[in-house]
Amino acid sequence: MSTPRLDLTADPIELTAALVDIPSVSRDESLIADAVEAALRAQTTDFEIVRHGNCVLARTHRGKPTRVILAGHLDTVPIVDNVPSRLTVTAEEGEVLHGCGTVDMKSGDAVFLHLAATLADTVCDLTLIFYDCEEIAAEFNGLGAVERDLPDWLVGDVAILGEPTAGQIEAGCQGTLRVRFTAAGTRAHSARAWMGENAVHKLGRMLSTLAAYEPRRVDIDGCEYREGLSAVGVHGGVAGNVIPDQAQVDVNFRFAPDRSPEQALAHVREVFAADLADGTLTAQVTDSAAGALPGLANPAAAELVAAADGRFRAKYGWTDVARFSALGIPAVNLGPGDPSLAHRVDERVPIGQITEVTQILRAYLTGASRAV
Amino acid sequence: MSTPRLDLTADPIELTAALVDIPSVSRDESLIADAVEAALRAQTTDFEIVRHGNCVLARTHRGKPTRVILAGHLDTVPIVDNVPSRLTVTAEEGEVLHGCGTVDMKSGDAVFLHLAATLADTVCDLTLIFYDCEEIAAEFNGLGAVERDLPDWLVGDVAILGEPTAGQIEAGCQGTLRVRFTAAGTRAHSARAWMGENAVHKLGRMLSTLAAYEPRRVDIDGCEYREGLSAVGVHGGVAGNVIPDQAQVDVNFRFAPDRSPEQALAHVREVFAADLADGTLTAQVTDSAAGALPGLANPAAAELVAAADGRFRAKYGWTDVARFSALGIPAVNLGPGDPSLAHRVDERVPIGQITEVTQILRAYLTGASRAV
Repeated sequence: MSTPRLDLTADPIELTAALVDIPSVSRDESLIADAVEAALRAQTTDFEIVRHGNCVLARTHRGKPTRVILAGHLDTVPIVDNVPSRLTVTAEEGEVLHGCGTVDMKSGDAVFLHLAATLADTVCDLTLIFYDCEEIAAEFNGLGAVERDLPDWLVGDVAILGEPTAGQIEAGCQGTLRVRFTAAGTRAHSARAWMGENAVHKLGRMLSTLAAYEPRRVDIDGCEYREGLSAVGVHGGVAGNVIPDQAQVDVNFRFAPDRSPEQALAHVREVFAADLADGTLTAQVTDSAAGALPGLANPAAAELVAAADGRFRAKYGWTDVARFSALGIPAVNLGPGDPSLAHRVDERVPIGQITEVTQILRAYLTGASRAV
Repeated sequence: MSTPRLDLTADPIELTAALVDIPSVSRDESLIADAVEAALRAQTTDFEIVRHGNCVLARTHRGKPTRVILAGHLDTVPIVDNVPSRLTVTAEEGEVLHGCGTVDMKSGDAVFLHLAATLADTVCDLTLIFYDCEEIAAEFNGLGAVERDLPDWLVGDVAILGEPTAGQIEAGCQGTLRVRFTAAGTRAHSARAWMGENAVHKLGRMLSTLAAYEPRRVDIDGCEYREGLSAVGVHGGVAGNVIPDQAQVDVNFRFAPDRSPEQALAHVREVFAADLADGTLTAQVTDSAAGALPGLANPAAAELVAAADGRFRAKYGWTDVARFSALGIPAVNLGPGDPSLAHRVDERVPIGQITEVTQILRAYLTGASRAV
């Protein structure tokens, strides 16, 4: 298939539709990456442009005092009869663009591409990163590949990830830790239960502990983070007439970014200290990802907040902003679309949010917000 | 395949081997039923013999004051390279017959068939029932079919089931009740746990109750029954980042035969009364089978105990004796073989136990035990 042509100077709403109309399910992003690369090469003048796998990177060298990174993934979850895009107008929702990727996150990509092509001058240097494989296992994530192979591209004063936030700045993100707690016992026929040791019965105390747990709320840079400690799975049992010799509870701890993953694990171990100390349970970490501090005290980030009329809130879910935070770069999420509509057959974005995010970022990147 | 010939007058050890060498996995019992039927017709004189599906029934009408039912299933669990049978002699175990069904329960069948063919006179009338499909779902059980279609064959003063008991009378059996307890909640993303209601967390109190539960021991007719209340399964969870909206615990209550299934359920509901009363859990019965009182006070049963030198104990597991008990017939399990070796690849019986059970039953059926 020939490379589709994207008009970066068109309204970002139209550009969103054009991007949605290029299918780009994870691991199948070459066509959209070709289109983005070709458009950037043809329609911008002073960008250094690099292609790395199915990542497309572009940056200016304008000698500005600060550098802003705009990053967005190009892939989507599988299409379910929701491509190509279509526009509807209803009294209830107004003008809405429907289709896979309208929310997550081709509308954010469209805003970034449009601004790169239309802002001849900016108060900061720009780095754009469009990457692949965000919607699948972390090992395939294109931003991770950039971090490994082209680390100098991840240098900047603030990073903006175009993930859906309904047009409101969401700062930092919480970390996530998964721990599998296992109780062991001895199998026996349930008709002779006393000959066994029931592993499932050993879960009572820990589940009661979880039920009684009071999660912490903490304010960081004016963002309120809300932690959560939750059983996300419980499994045990061999057959209807067998005393189970093993039972497991998978616990997910979502922790505020003032804790490191190590501190988060220490906290979880402390919560279940009684069960761990007497050997009722053993614990094994199955997944861990650091959170990201909001970093809004940083001047470059503070200006972005000003451009958004001072509105911001904490991001609860984990996103790729954590990668930037780990590199010491303040990072926020800002993009059109309601995140709860992502990954849904009826994924759709009110087009007004695309315009709104474009205006916020245009003001920010041109310094217009200082005059507001 | 032509019908294999069984020599019922041969030593029950040889007869066990011959039965094991006729494969008879559940639902494939026609060949062994043909062989048993043909042997009974050819090698007994005064038995009324009926074939019903793959059940073979035989009974005397000798005008005796009592009638003893000898019942055994002809089917086995699937063969795992453990047929035909083979005999080994080792210093450790002595003479041992190996093979699928040696324990469960062709050795018991062999004893019954041998006695039917070799005891010209008995102090009681005899009813023999060889049935199919015991090892699979209850709906297929051949004894159930006899109960439905030929109820007059289940008339007697005592029933002996040839299930493996290592040659010791095991009286009655415990009942079994399965109840599924379900906790409901509200699904949410685990990054925003406070928006959901975690069903798994609601299991803590009930599992702690189970862990603290003190099962009852009760003496009935000199048999000590030991109850057990056990979680046999616990399940809940949607994904690693989702607050589960449902969680279940399957509880198995093995109850002494002085409780009816209804009384057993009332007890279980009482144990979890707090969780049921406040709606934390709902309960649904998934399986229920009455136990069987040992009935050893019955004269015909007492004579059997005397023939076994007064040795007997309670049966914990549920067996088909409960069907007889429900009909008001005292019933016991008595057969060669260690039940813990049933259903195993290395299933095997010490041949001495086959001889021992044959002697006990010969003494009982001929009245020889009265002279002991």
